[in-house]
Amino acid sequence: MALRMVWALGDAFADMCNGDGKYAFYVRTREHGRDIMADPNTLSAIDAATAIRTGQLTSERLVEACLARIDERENTVGAWAYINPDQALTEARARDKQEPKGLLHGVPVGIKDVIDTADMPTEYGSPIYKDHQPACDAACVAQVRESGGVILGKTVSTEFATRYAGKTRNPHNTDHTPGGSSSGSGAAVADCMVPLAFGTQTTGSHIRPASYCGIVGYKPSFNMIDRAGLKQLSQSFDTLGVHGRTVKDTALVVAALSDFHVPESAWEIAGRPKIAFCRTPVWDEADAKTQALVEEAASRLGGHGAEVVEVTLPAAFDELAEAHTTISEFEFCRALSYERTNFLEMLSEHLRGRLEHGMGWTRTEYEAAWQKVAHCAGLMEDVFNGYDVILAPSVPGEAPRFEEGTGSPIFSQFWTPLGLPCVNVPVLEGPTDLPIGIQLLAPLGEDARALTHADWVHRKLSG
Amino acid sequence: MALRMVWALGDAFADMCNGDGKYAFYVRTREHGRDIMADPNTLSAIDAATAIRTGQLTSERLVEACLARIDERENTVGAWAYINPDQALTEARARDKQEPKGLLHGVPVGIKDVIDTADMPTEYGSPIYKDHQPACDAACVAQVRESGGVILGKTVSTEFATRYAGKTRNPHNTDHTPGGSSSGSGAAVADCMVPLAFGTQTTGSHIRPASYCGIVGYKPSFNMIDRAGLKQLSQSFDTLGVHGRTVKDTALVVAALSDFHVPESAWEIAGRPKIAFCRTPVWDEADAKTQALVEEAASRLGGHGAEVVEVTLPAAFDELAEAHTTISEFEFCRALSYERTNFLEMLSEHLRGRLEHGMGWTRTEYEAAWQKVAHCAGLMEDVFNGYDVILAPSVPGEAPRFEEGTGSPIFSQFWTPLGLPCVNVPVLEGPTDLPIGIQLLAPLGEDARALTHADWVHRKLSG
Repeated sequence: MALRMVWALGDAFADMCNGDGKYAFYVRTREHGRDIMADPNTLSAIDAATAIRTGQLTSERLVEACLARIDERENTVGAWAYINPDQALTEARARDKQEPKGLLHGVPVGIKDVIDTADMPTEYGSPIYKDHQPACDAACVAQVRESGGVILGKTVSTEFATRYAGKTRNPHNTDHTPGGSSSGSGAAVADCMVPLAFGTQTTGSHIRPASYCGIVGYKPSFNMIDRAGLKQLSQSFDTLGVHGRTVKDTALVVAALSDFHVPESAWEIAGRPKIAFCRTPVWDEADAKTQALVEEAASRLGGHGAEVVEVTLPAAFDELAEAHTTISEFEFCRALSYERTNFLEMLSEHLRGRLEHGMGWTRTEYEAAWQKVAHCAGLMEDVFNGYDVILAPSVPGEAPRFEEGTGSPIFSQFWTPLGLPCVNVPVLEGPTDLPIGIQLLAPLGEDARALTHADWVHRKLSG
Repeated sequence: MALRMVWALGDAFADMCNGDGKYAFYVRTREHGRDIMADPNTLSAIDAATAIRTGQLTSERLVEACLARIDERENTVGAWAYINPDQALTEARARDKQEPKGLLHGVPVGIKDVIDTADMPTEYGSPIYKDHQPACDAACVAQVRESGGVILGKTVSTEFATRYAGKTRNPHNTDHTPGGSSSGSGAAVADCMVPLAFGTQTTGSHIRPASYCGIVGYKPSFNMIDRAGLKQLSQSFDTLGVHGRTVKDTALVVAALSDFHVPESAWEIAGRPKIAFCRTPVWDEADAKTQALVEEAASRLGGHGAEVVEVTLPAAFDELAEAHTTISEFEFCRALSYERTNFLEMLSEHLRGRLEHGMGWTRTEYEAAWQKVAHCAGLMEDVFNGYDVILAPSVPGEAPRFEEGTGSPIFSQFWTPLGLPCVNVPVLEGPTDLPIGIQLLAPLGEDARALTHADWVHRKLSG
């Protein structure tokens, strides 16, 4: 592995020391189980927030450490669409002078550049919006600030959160893609440039980069995080999610924004976790090595005390990915009407093709696709019957090489229309030492189940 | 009635003549059944589009007539937040030089000022956004242009489409409110300033002004018109709708934007329309005169051959308005986080109160409210069983006086969470000669039923 990242798990021992006049923390790495020195930017968001609240760390010092990491690595990784160190530090210093405002007080957050910010340009990954300055913060950005968070900068998105890639490289191996569309968020969090970042998913844009970059990606139930100020692509599927390095960190953001709190006691799962292992209808799309790794992970969870039973999705699910394509393309070409009708030549060839294809779908086809989605949604209760969560692959394999594009969303595409909460946990390592994640899914609205089981899996398989 | 408006129904005979060097049309008024002279701005959108397509009328002449009407009446009615005659005429002249682009070719449309326009300021009804110029057109605006429509200007919205009123007066009697939040759209269409305008509904913001202003208001099934570029208030309920003077005109817009076409044959209803007359759980909120008028309308429809049967909503519906309040306030205060946390003092006292109240709702209460909505949604199949549509009051009575606010949304509030298509038809006249509408509702996705039955009711009761 080209780069070994050291970070603190949510339950890691953290204690402050002062070396060379700089704050630093001892953190336990996930690989070696021993305490080593690490900088504040490697802390989990929860540890950082706790340290700030208890006076062991300042927001300024934390942001400085993140900026130092960015300074060191950004030329290589290219995670940021916009960053202004003075601006971020000013916000951090202001936090240090305030009474704690909320759960995120003092913690820096990266914002995917399809999400509006009133004080930073927002380009939606498109040259059409070069230097575009929105008039107001998206709801989630204003809520982060309301909760005391610091907006560190804007992370690279593919073009309008579709497929045309930005500059970002996979921090584990820069010859590879970080995945997309939430490319910069995935890479920045993985590279310890920031502990938290927003991503979005319309097809597989949040889970895939989390998997490729080896971090946690939590895509909450549909509409859990308010979408005001998100550049809309598909009104039916666009979902805001959180990238972090621990499951609890991602849950912290949703607690701050949506008043959704996982009870502390729920993190300790009572009894045997009941896990439905689902190869999914697209299992054959995964490479053999990944199939073996996922199977082995399921088996190891059994060894850790989980009841793991293989489930097969009903045949109706075979048509779900196609239904997603119909619905999302029908919506893409409408949501992007202004760009399509005024700036067609400034869109990538890929996106032009998608929009043109989208204009070909009829309302009748769109509605028929929705009927398929509704049918499958109705079947989910039976699928989940008796199980706490579904365990499924996140991706077909390791991150492809950069020039091959942002990878395939195929292992998310058929889940996304159902709006289920899902959490990628980074627990596998592919044949070329790149990370591979698996995802835990729970019924719509049962985010606590998805999160607590993902956390359990993360802890058990990261040992 | 202070003002008698003369307009063409969608099926009106229209023929062009040239009087005094000005184009004009003979149209049959809905009141007298005789042909009289009327200006192009009084034409239905369908008649205008047909006349333009067949070379009998130009878009320029039509827009001129609308602008002349605005020039004559705007000081009294105050329907427009922004209008630039030169800009509208330039767009109209461009249309006259093009091959017909689509269903709306040459037809002017008013845009509620919570919907972004790239070439006109958009203030969302709030001083916070004075002179704000969005970077791009909302999807629906770009789609109108793509279909050949002309954006005439921006119509007045209440503050962020909530309750604090703008300047608009009811064109029938300027001592009264036009309703809200789609105040300007309702008034402008009713006053023949424009044949079509977009409104939005989150509680009762589209149906109510249509009822008070005596026009058709079609609120399609949830998500029928793409919401990209609409200033978001409640992601779960915000719905774009169309104001027009005929039912078919409103359907034309949705056909152009959403590829939703009511088959021509469906407008002639085969057999007896089966109408469920629903007083609703808030019947007592309607004044006695309105109750009598609605009952009489239901009875008259029976006389016209409909099978009209009274239905009572299950008791669960009694809690639906409250569930709507919980959900929408929970979402308002999040969607407007930027404004709430940065410009609280620039919000109206009313909205400040709503947002503060919204911050008090817990996630648990929010989810419990959704369960009530889901329960009622599940009951709708039984409610509609055997009936084509529901007929229900649109409002408690005539438009209140201007200084009393924009009126009560109570007769829409419990329907809105269900996302059903509904159409206000202006068929009643209150004790002080102000219009009162009734609404026709159909099951989710069955917009054709709502439209064709509304058209039937409109024709039968407008005679």
